[in-house]
Amino acid sequence: MPVNYQTPVASQLKPVRGVRLGIARAAIRKLDRKDLLLIELAAGARVAGVFTRNRFCAAPVQVCQRHLGTTDNPGEIRALLINTGVANAGTGEPGWLAARATCAAVAQQLSLQPEQVLPFSTGVILEPLPVERIEAGLPACIADLDADHWFDAAHAIMTTDTVAKAASRQIDIGGHTITITGIAKGAGMIRPNMATMLGFVATDAAVSQAALARMVREAADESFNCVTVDGDTSTNDSFMLIATGGAGGAEVDESSPDYALLAEALTGVARELAQAIVRDGEGATKYIRIAVEGGDSRAECKAVGYAIAHSPLVKTAFFASDPNLGRILAAIGNAGIADLDVSRIRMWLDDVLVSCDGGRNPDYREEDGARVMRQAEITIRVDLGRGGAIASVWTCDFSYDYVKINADYRS
Amino acid sequence: MPVNYQTPVASQLKPVRGVRLGIARAAIRKLDRKDLLLIELAAGARVAGVFTRNRFCAAPVQVCQRHLGTTDNPGEIRALLINTGVANAGTGEPGWLAARATCAAVAQQLSLQPEQVLPFSTGVILEPLPVERIEAGLPACIADLDADHWFDAAHAIMTTDTVAKAASRQIDIGGHTITITGIAKGAGMIRPNMATMLGFVATDAAVSQAALARMVREAADESFNCVTVDGDTSTNDSFMLIATGGAGGAEVDESSPDYALLAEALTGVARELAQAIVRDGEGATKYIRIAVEGGDSRAECKAVGYAIAHSPLVKTAFFASDPNLGRILAAIGNAGIADLDVSRIRMWLDDVLVSCDGGRNPDYREEDGARVMRQAEITIRVDLGRGGAIASVWTCDFSYDYVKINADYRS
Repeated sequence: MPVNYQTPVASQLKPVRGVRLGIARAAIRKLDRKDLLLIELAAGARVAGVFTRNRFCAAPVQVCQRHLGTTDNPGEIRALLINTGVANAGTGEPGWLAARATCAAVAQQLSLQPEQVLPFSTGVILEPLPVERIEAGLPACIADLDADHWFDAAHAIMTTDTVAKAASRQIDIGGHTITITGIAKGAGMIRPNMATMLGFVATDAAVSQAALARMVREAADESFNCVTVDGDTSTNDSFMLIATGGAGGAEVDESSPDYALLAEALTGVARELAQAIVRDGEGATKYIRIAVEGGDSRAECKAVGYAIAHSPLVKTAFFASDPNLGRILAAIGNAGIADLDVSRIRMWLDDVLVSCDGGRNPDYREEDGARVMRQAEITIRVDLGRGGAIASVWTCDFSYDYVKINADYRS
Repeated sequence: MPVNYQTPVASQLKPVRGVRLGIARAAIRKLDRKDLLLIELAAGARVAGVFTRNRFCAAPVQVCQRHLGTTDNPGEIRALLINTGVANAGTGEPGWLAARATCAAVAQQLSLQPEQVLPFSTGVILEPLPVERIEAGLPACIADLDADHWFDAAHAIMTTDTVAKAASRQIDIGGHTITITGIAKGAGMIRPNMATMLGFVATDAAVSQAALARMVREAADESFNCVTVDGDTSTNDSFMLIATGGAGGAEVDESSPDYALLAEALTGVARELAQAIVRDGEGATKYIRIAVEGGDSRAECKAVGYAIAHSPLVKTAFFASDPNLGRILAAIGNAGIADLDVSRIRMWLDDVLVSCDGGRNPDYREEDGARVMRQAEITIRVDLGRGGAIASVWTCDFSYDYVKINADYRS
């Protein structure tokens, strides 16, 4: 059960003009499960993305990077194909050929070039992609294409997720109603380093390629790159931003007055999706926000946030609602900041000042810490006392069920 | 239950001439538990140590570093005092004063200077050291001092350990029988960065201060700095090497022909203790050796080893005996080696070649992987195909019981 998260109902997910989605049950790994999603884009749509930094990046990630081209010379992307069940990672040259084969199959049926198709896979690593089953599922996807299928699409990309993740909002730019709708999946192997497992956000605003490329980086940095479940960066992380221009209106470029408005709305949708992934983190019973301030740089604030978020001892203490808060100090001390002066650090649990002057706050009472620890949502606030930089990291606790889910996955 | 480890019986732990040990039940955190250990050294003994790199290093670590002095101007250490229950970490200035007060109490009763005493603490962080209870327990420790008390001493420093860890061996140097005996504790918060939670190894060889300082670094690098249970570096990690000279014979210095012989024997004892910590890792059901070869440097081999050893997904797969081995490739890809060519990597489980050419070995059969995964001891071998460097890391799996132990600790 996710922590305080409910999938929006289908009617809350507004269609994005120029985007249609079709779902199929292709029996890729399990029978009778929605496991194949085709996203079709109208001509003229632009796409930008960020991908995993894992050196064992999956074959579909490599194919996507090739097909997307560069900002100066972008590919004309018209379709995205997403399968669950098999990640097509750790599959070498045959994996690349398999990913390309699925692009060719989509292209053949939609009268496109293979280079106009982006492939995405998520699931078990080190197993071959069942290309035939994907090809066999394509006609059902195409027959199902509809601008109103975001809800089904969010379900079709789930693996160990317990709920579908989706978000939608509308803003006004120059008198035009702009829609932004997105979906994401992920629950474990979540420590995105450029993007989450899979995230797709589309808008019908018109956006220049350079502005879109910048927006996707900025949005990732403020959303998927702030979350962690277990510190494991996936081989398949991909976050794609699509702009169709279907809403009409002037093109937004990097110098437009509307750039910030649109970028903030896109980031908001991405943040909602990223936080949903943490709320649905494998085995999660608590949602924890770690707000680090007073750093020399945003990078060191993030390092402290991740050191806390990745400590199994911190995470199990939160699972137990045990205010064993020295574990947080130990994690801060392990963040790799060589000249950290621990006597300047202050640490709060929500509004309770736990630690200052290198030790326990003399006024801290264990019952205050225990009260906050029992909540389902908790903020750990750390002031490093070194400068003006801030950063936040969102994570969840570490429970029996995390072990159970990951000891059982595949079986 | 530890994985294939049994504490040596008392008679196997040979006394070290010049070292006496005394134990007491001081009720520091729990009643009727051996929780205080005093180690008394004969005049002329030399001591060298390495300590945690956690920036929140505990007060006793800071006091130890002060009292040990430098290689050129070492302190004349005559006693070590170790308590469990409270770590005296995250305790600020009062914590320093408390650690010093316990040194002063020992000095007063043994007619020493406080600077001749080294304090060590392990247990809960962020709680004040109960100095009075430690002082009250000292007479019992002193009355108990005996060269034959290594076995009891190993028990007195345990916290979440399920077994006491100790090792002993004898070598011949120039016709003199040299004894090396050591003890260690630790089961969780184990990712030593210079040393383990607490390790004490003594020899009755005569060793120069410079040689001893080098031996302790070398031994740590080949033992405690190769193990991890959960990736959390403690605030109190300390590994101390003691040389009393009580066996007679010439002093071993860095240019002695016997340096390598003695250093290797000391490292062997340290390695045995470090591996015992992993075998007794919190909740451990499997003992895993990760051997990385073909690296550009020892540092990158260790980075790969630790990336595998710290992956919760790898560790839970081993707990489940599930050969979901793509998780190992994903962990290798996350080791932070920017120019890693994954097509050159080969990975074995014991003698089974699982992966090569960037993908699964065509001859790999899942039943072979499954057979190895069912064993209690497993070697993961990785060839990076980049150079001639090697390194090993030892770790354990990640089970329900790890969560249970750390969700319950303190209660």
